[in-house]
Amino acid sequence: MKKRYFPIAADAPPPLSVTVQRRVRFEEVDAIGYVWHGRYASYFEDARVALGARYGLGYMDFYRRGVIAPLKQLHVEYHRPLRFEDDFTIEARWHYSEAARLNYEFIIRDSTAAAVATGYSVQMMLDGDNDFLVVPPPFYQQFLRRWRAGELQ
Amino acid sequence: MKKRYFPIAADAPPPLSVTVQRRVRFEEVDAIGYVWHGRYASYFEDARVALGARYGLGYMDFYRRGVIAPLKQLHVEYHRPLRFEDDFTIEARWHYSEAARLNYEFIIRDSTAAAVATGYSVQMMLDGDNDFLVVPPPFYQQFLRRWRAGELQ
Amino acid sequence: MKKRYFPIAADAPPPLSVTVQRRVRFEEVDAIGYVWHGRYASYFEDARVALGARYGLGYMDFYRRGVIAPLKQLHVEYHRPLRFEDDFTIEARWHYSEAARLNYEFIIRDSTAAAVATGYSVQMMLDGDNDFLVVPPPFYQQFLRRWRAGELQ
Amino acid sequence: MKKRYFPIAADAPPPLSVTVQRRVRFEEVDAIGYVWHGRYASYFEDARVALGARYGLGYMDFYRRGVIAPLKQLHVEYHRPLRFEDDFTIEARWHYSEAARLNYEFIIRDSTAAAVATGYSVQMMLDGDNDFLVVPPPFYQQFLRRWRAGELQ
Repeated sequence: MKKRYFPIAADAPPPLSVTVQRRVRFEEVDAIGYVWHGRYASYFEDARVALGARYGLGYMDFYRRGVIAPLKQLHVEYHRPLRFEDDFTIEARWHYSEAARLNYEFIIRDSTAAAVATGYSVQMMLDGDNDFLVVPPPFYQQFLRRWRAGELQ
Repeated sequence: MKKRYFPIAADAPPPLSVTVQRRVRFEEVDAIGYVWHGRYASYFEDARVALGARYGLGYMDFYRRGVIAPLKQLHVEYHRPLRFEDDFTIEARWHYSEAARLNYEFIIRDSTAAAVATGYSVQMMLDGDNDFLVVPPPFYQQFLRRWRAGELQ
Repeated sequence: MKKRYFPIAADAPPPLSVTVQRRVRFEEVDAIGYVWHGRYASYFEDARVALGARYGLGYMDFYRRGVIAPLKQLHVEYHRPLRFEDDFTIEARWHYSEAARLNYEFIIRDSTAAAVATGYSVQMMLDGDNDFLVVPPPFYQQFLRRWRAGELQ
Repeated sequence: MKKRYFPIAADAPPPLSVTVQRRVRFEEVDAIGYVWHGRYASYFEDARVALGARYGLGYMDFYRRGVIAPLKQLHVEYHRPLRFEDDFTIEARWHYSEAARLNYEFIIRDSTAAAVATGYSVQMMLDGDNDFLVVPPPFYQQFLRRWRAGELQ
């Protein structure tokens, strides 16, 4: 992926990433024999959830601390089809940002490592009144400090 | 929507559009009580299918004529949440293009007509060997002629 | 449907029923071109939700009153396939019972009124500690009284 | 599971079985925080597909040989809820039958091995004209012979 989905500061620490392994399920395939395009949101989510879980910062971790982090944008580019029972991987890369938002980039690859789909998602942090947070909450700022310090892996 | 998702030629005929009515179903709502973001691909599709059906140019109409028109891009911007049993509308606008692609723009509105989500999809036309078509097939070129001539509504 | 899914007392009032209209959506169809069997749970739910809504006794109405009414059983019999864009109806019949349970029967019919699928669902009422209720809560007993008195339609 | 879902001949060979491992995904959870009941058809299918794949007798294997094996019955009994990120297993047991049908039984267990759900599915074999087969096709009869002879594992 040469294209940059997000503006990234020159001194930003490298993204955090995780890759999950999946196989196409029968219900995910459409009448033409390919994975239905709408399923990719769910594939991206598998990797985003895995990455959130690794750092204790999943949807429900935010929610329990009074912060909702709903999707504001989702973008998918489809390069090749997947078929029933195909094996594939989903890589999520969490890009560093000091704003009250979460920037994830995704790459789905088939078993030959060819790119099947790429894309990104943006989440904004809201407080209990559904108002946008101007700065991230303290628990998240601490996470950013550890990220900058290279303490996460 | 002030933003333009597609480049539109100055002399292009106006888009074709259709609006469908829906109500949020229980299985569409997530653990936080909002429609799960991945469902919007399916909402957009409801309007795209309705528009294709109106002009006899749905997925399966292409398929039966030896042309596959898979999604190449999907983009969604989320503005407000929808909840279980909320009524909403989905408007699809089909933008004129002489390339072998289908450009759709979408607007979901709640019962107060406030924008809930906007976005677009791009489909590319492929032949039976999964190669991109350089120009649209004759049946589609005829459709474009009727569109330019103002014969569609 | 000659078969009886539920034991029904001789003096029970007639079932409450509602019929909803639907059209098969693209994402509901599988690789063989038929509606995927797992979707029928969702079709049944459309009619069950419509019936609950008519009497103010939907899932969330129970939930707001401290009662959860999760599914305990689901049964589906498939008679004919449905294909993309087929029109069909879903009839739900709510059978009278004085136990702390909800007994629904379903009939899906295609546009020729032929039975596509039949089935039933059973929900049990639980309190806030997830314990089964021995008798229905007062608001539901009042609903049963009105049902017996023929005040519902 | 003391209850028998299928009549099983006294001299039938033991069932074939497979157990798959899964974790609850975010989109599978409903507004009350539990896995939506309609998802269990998909969980059962994961194990049925795994078992079909092990013996080269999945949906598409039948289909390629001119036989469709659609679901005729699905039955689910729900014993305990599953929540987001819960780990669970799905066991499918394929019961021997010489009729042109496939009888599967399912047990979902949580991480403490407690039964979460049980159920069964019945598939009938149809030929290319959608007529029920009276006897299974030769390739399936050979599979039954190997099953009886104890050659499968």
